[in-house]
Amino acid sequence: MDKIEHIGIAVESLERSNELFTKLFGEPPYKEEGVASESVKTSFFKSGPNKIELLEATHPDSPIARFIAKKGEGVHHIAFAVDDIKAEMKRLEAEGFQLLNTEPKEGADNKWVAFLHPKTTNGVLIELCQDRG
Amino acid sequence: MDKIEHIGIAVESLERSNELFTKLFGEPPYKEEGVASESVKTSFFKSGPNKIELLEATHPDSPIARFIAKKGEGVHHIAFAVDDIKAEMKRLEAEGFQLLNTEPKEGADNKWVAFLHPKTTNGVLIELCQDRG
Repeated sequence: MDKIEHIGIAVESLERSNELFTKLFGEPPYKEEGVASESVKTSFFKSGPNKIELLEATHPDSPIARFIAKKGEGVHHIAFAVDDIKAEMKRLEAEGFQLLNTEPKEGADNKWVAFLHPKTTNGVLIELCQDRG
Repeated sequence: MDKIEHIGIAVESLERSNELFTKLFGEPPYKEEGVASESVKTSFFKSGPNKIELLEATHPDSPIARFIAKKGEGVHHIAFAVDDIKAEMKRLEAEGFQLLNTEPKEGADNKWVAFLHPKTTNGVLIELCQDRG
């Protein structure tokens, strides 16, 4: 848990929210990227050592679309950088946290990612992420 | 907007959540602090250059109690570090963001703070914070 790698924010329109966050940070997103397996389009903003990831659903049945239907736009997950994702998954499972995936999977921004079930983390969806190198 | 200074998480029980986040980070909170004006008790965890602030309401009419009643436990706000909070408030207001306080106010952790209305920021409550020095 080296730092907050990024905060993922679910948005209805990446175009509209890119404008909004460009005003907020005074700089445009430094990249946009689709993740087909998660049915999302993403954009990334820098905030010093941290990032903000905006997520727009590309399919009405995707996790982000379901999140927005239920809760509205807002913070979707917090991602922490880890050096060894497999070791960290093992440690957290032993501590009683429930993992949503048993093996690391490919995420946006060239990362291996794994999620902890929010029911074991105070309602916060937590992502672990490690650079794929 | 130098970095994510901290993420504020609304919790029902600071005691229970301190245990949970101690397991998550592998380290206990480095401080606990009450903010009487906001009717909250807080605890802080380090994650590299960032912090996680847990917030428990001390009064049923407080903002955190109302947040939990409406949305349940979870991410309450994201705080960005700024060097000059007054200048940043002025800049953001000119960009069309709505401020929740017109002057910086004293927050936890020896900070001057100001909030942006979530209706102008994709449903995310954003805090600006500057060290009080």
